[in-house]
Amino acid sequence: MARVVQKYGGTAVTTPEQIKKVAQRVIDSYNDNNDVVVVISARTGETNRLIEMAHEMCPGQEGREYDLLISAGEQVSVGLLALCITSMGYKTRTYLGWQVPIITDPIHTRASIEEVDPTKIITDLKLGSIVIVAGFQGIDRGGNITTLGRGGGDTSAVVLAHALEAEQCELYSDVDGIFTADPAVCSDARKIELISYDEMLELASQGARGVQIRAIEYAKKHNVTIHVRSSFTAASGTLVTGEDTTMEGVLVTGIVYDKNEAKIAVLGVPDKPGTAARILTALADSGISVDMIVQNVSQAALADLTFTVSKNDLDKASLITTKIAEELNVREVVADRNISKVSIVGLGMRNHAGVAARMFTALAYNNINIQMISTSEIKVSVAIDERYTELAVRVLHEAFKMHV
Amino acid sequence: MARVVQKYGGTAVTTPEQIKKVAQRVIDSYNDNNDVVVVISARTGETNRLIEMAHEMCPGQEGREYDLLISAGEQVSVGLLALCITSMGYKTRTYLGWQVPIITDPIHTRASIEEVDPTKIITDLKLGSIVIVAGFQGIDRGGNITTLGRGGGDTSAVVLAHALEAEQCELYSDVDGIFTADPAVCSDARKIELISYDEMLELASQGARGVQIRAIEYAKKHNVTIHVRSSFTAASGTLVTGEDTTMEGVLVTGIVYDKNEAKIAVLGVPDKPGTAARILTALADSGISVDMIVQNVSQAALADLTFTVSKNDLDKASLITTKIAEELNVREVVADRNISKVSIVGLGMRNHAGVAARMFTALAYNNINIQMISTSEIKVSVAIDERYTELAVRVLHEAFKMHV
Repeated sequence: MARVVQKYGGTAVTTPEQIKKVAQRVIDSYNDNNDVVVVISARTGETNRLIEMAHEMCPGQEGREYDLLISAGEQVSVGLLALCITSMGYKTRTYLGWQVPIITDPIHTRASIEEVDPTKIITDLKLGSIVIVAGFQGIDRGGNITTLGRGGGDTSAVVLAHALEAEQCELYSDVDGIFTADPAVCSDARKIELISYDEMLELASQGARGVQIRAIEYAKKHNVTIHVRSSFTAASGTLVTGEDTTMEGVLVTGIVYDKNEAKIAVLGVPDKPGTAARILTALADSGISVDMIVQNVSQAALADLTFTVSKNDLDKASLITTKIAEELNVREVVADRNISKVSIVGLGMRNHAGVAARMFTALAYNNINIQMISTSEIKVSVAIDERYTELAVRVLHEAFKMHV
Repeated sequence: MARVVQKYGGTAVTTPEQIKKVAQRVIDSYNDNNDVVVVISARTGETNRLIEMAHEMCPGQEGREYDLLISAGEQVSVGLLALCITSMGYKTRTYLGWQVPIITDPIHTRASIEEVDPTKIITDLKLGSIVIVAGFQGIDRGGNITTLGRGGGDTSAVVLAHALEAEQCELYSDVDGIFTADPAVCSDARKIELISYDEMLELASQGARGVQIRAIEYAKKHNVTIHVRSSFTAASGTLVTGEDTTMEGVLVTGIVYDKNEAKIAVLGVPDKPGTAARILTALADSGISVDMIVQNVSQAALADLTFTVSKNDLDKASLITTKIAEELNVREVVADRNISKVSIVGLGMRNHAGVAARMFTALAYNNINIQMISTSEIKVSVAIDERYTELAVRVLHEAFKMHV
């Protein structure tokens, strides 16, 4: 008798047929002698519909009432799935966030979970019920409904899995698991059986779909095993767990790319302390996230500062940067929308020198020019011309022999 | 400084423009130095949409999860109205049923309110907030979401008005108030300024739109003044209150009709005790409501039993009745779909003989044949050929000089 938490995303529960399939999968797991707790998201499009209504009504208001409004989406999914499972002859028990309760801080639209009381759910499981919980939502200590931000359903599931001491937190979506590279780009891509929290964090941060970053962070902290798998097949997916000695045998675990990057180069900056800080602070104050940052001294006392922002933010970021650049007597500001970021991730890099070199060599051999480089302990990212994204992924997949 | 509860139906909050109008009306009342508590329903079509999804998923399941699902409708309206009022610069505070809490019995889909704790709402009002409450929903003592049944929003409003000791419970809809007759049928119809709970109950039972019967019953029991008015005009509507000595001066307060009636005549029933009961019990067991019932002995030891059901139930009711009729050796069962019921209602009937006679005379004078008669202390209903419904309403409106 094991206890599992299964989380289904919105794409899995949009139509009645999909809901019936999810219900059958839940029941199969229950009949496999498991205690099953299901965490469910709003149907695809439902939350967006509610957000659009809210914005039409009143742009820019994203507090208590906004959360109350958008949390109606999961409520509908929870009700529908419970009705479906009940009609198939099984006992269910449903919980909205406040009913568990899943207690969060009072930061509306991006609340953090502070505490979960699993007592009622455990009682239901002992009575043989399949428990269905609304993801994405909670309640603060003042009794107000809160939401956890986009993808919060993953976090709800991992937090519940921890509180319930579940054997595994299964995150179902329409992908079979985490792959060594995007299978749509690289036909050799292979499903990864086992990956560490840190690698998964890097892959997710650099553009991999599949699991929300906050959920991985929580899982890492509390050592919750995540199983990323598809709701369309019975095959197992990718296990995300603590580190394993076998993991370091592999140099590069995964390759990811992100085309939603744009570059701003600030050329000929007087090389004085605080110059980069002034630009980056102005961007942060305007709510613009900066991803890669590179600075180097190009000639006597003049530096070049280059950074990337998301493509959506490029125009706004250019404007802000140009304004400050003028005050600072900077030579030139150049914006480039046509770049992408390609990253390789792997625990093995820690102990093996030469991984970055092998990456750069492979790209150079294919005439792919590297515009920026950024590294962490287990990751190397490069910014390149967007046109070469797919080629770069295939070249690197081959260079690190990742298909085997 | 007065305290008012305003209830807006789904038709008032379906589009963003309508919500803005409601917001303005609420704010006007607030600026008129009132404490305002708004009770709001789901947008028109929203609850039906949710019910359809539930039925598609799982027909016939109408318990805990069904209530959880369909109560999402008011949640959306509450959020939208609050966002709108906030954007217009006023402070709001929202409550779902469980947040008030509005405590009900655990009878899902048609729960009765048992208790309302107004403490939090009163605190909010004292702090200058406009309070917005989801109608139609509550929570049982086990922490489960319940709904009050169709039109339950009226009941929520009246119960809150009582708990808050509000001066008035305003029920807004798209009609200007209660009329002496349907203005679409009778151009002379006049808006009634003041009507008693009992008259309103009879009118509502006999087919008048405007207020739910349960809400009127609760208002009568706790002496809550209801103001039925339109959300489209500033004009006052109809006050529903306790009896007033002036009320009895009017013989007939209102005329209503109901075309959704059908007649079944059971002819030549052996006149033995229990025969009618047997038929009516069988109908009740099948969930069919019987409205008017008339029995009279037609010839030696044989009786005729006639009753009305809703047109939707006619075929099923005919089948059941015919089956029992055969066992009882009844001569004939005749079903008639083409009837309607026309009723006159007025407190004045109590002390004035001859009201029924005047009604029958007026109908006879216009060659409208009366097929059935049913009376209460303050009401006379007749079943007539459906074709003459509008004529009968106009004739009676004239006969009782109701236009003055």
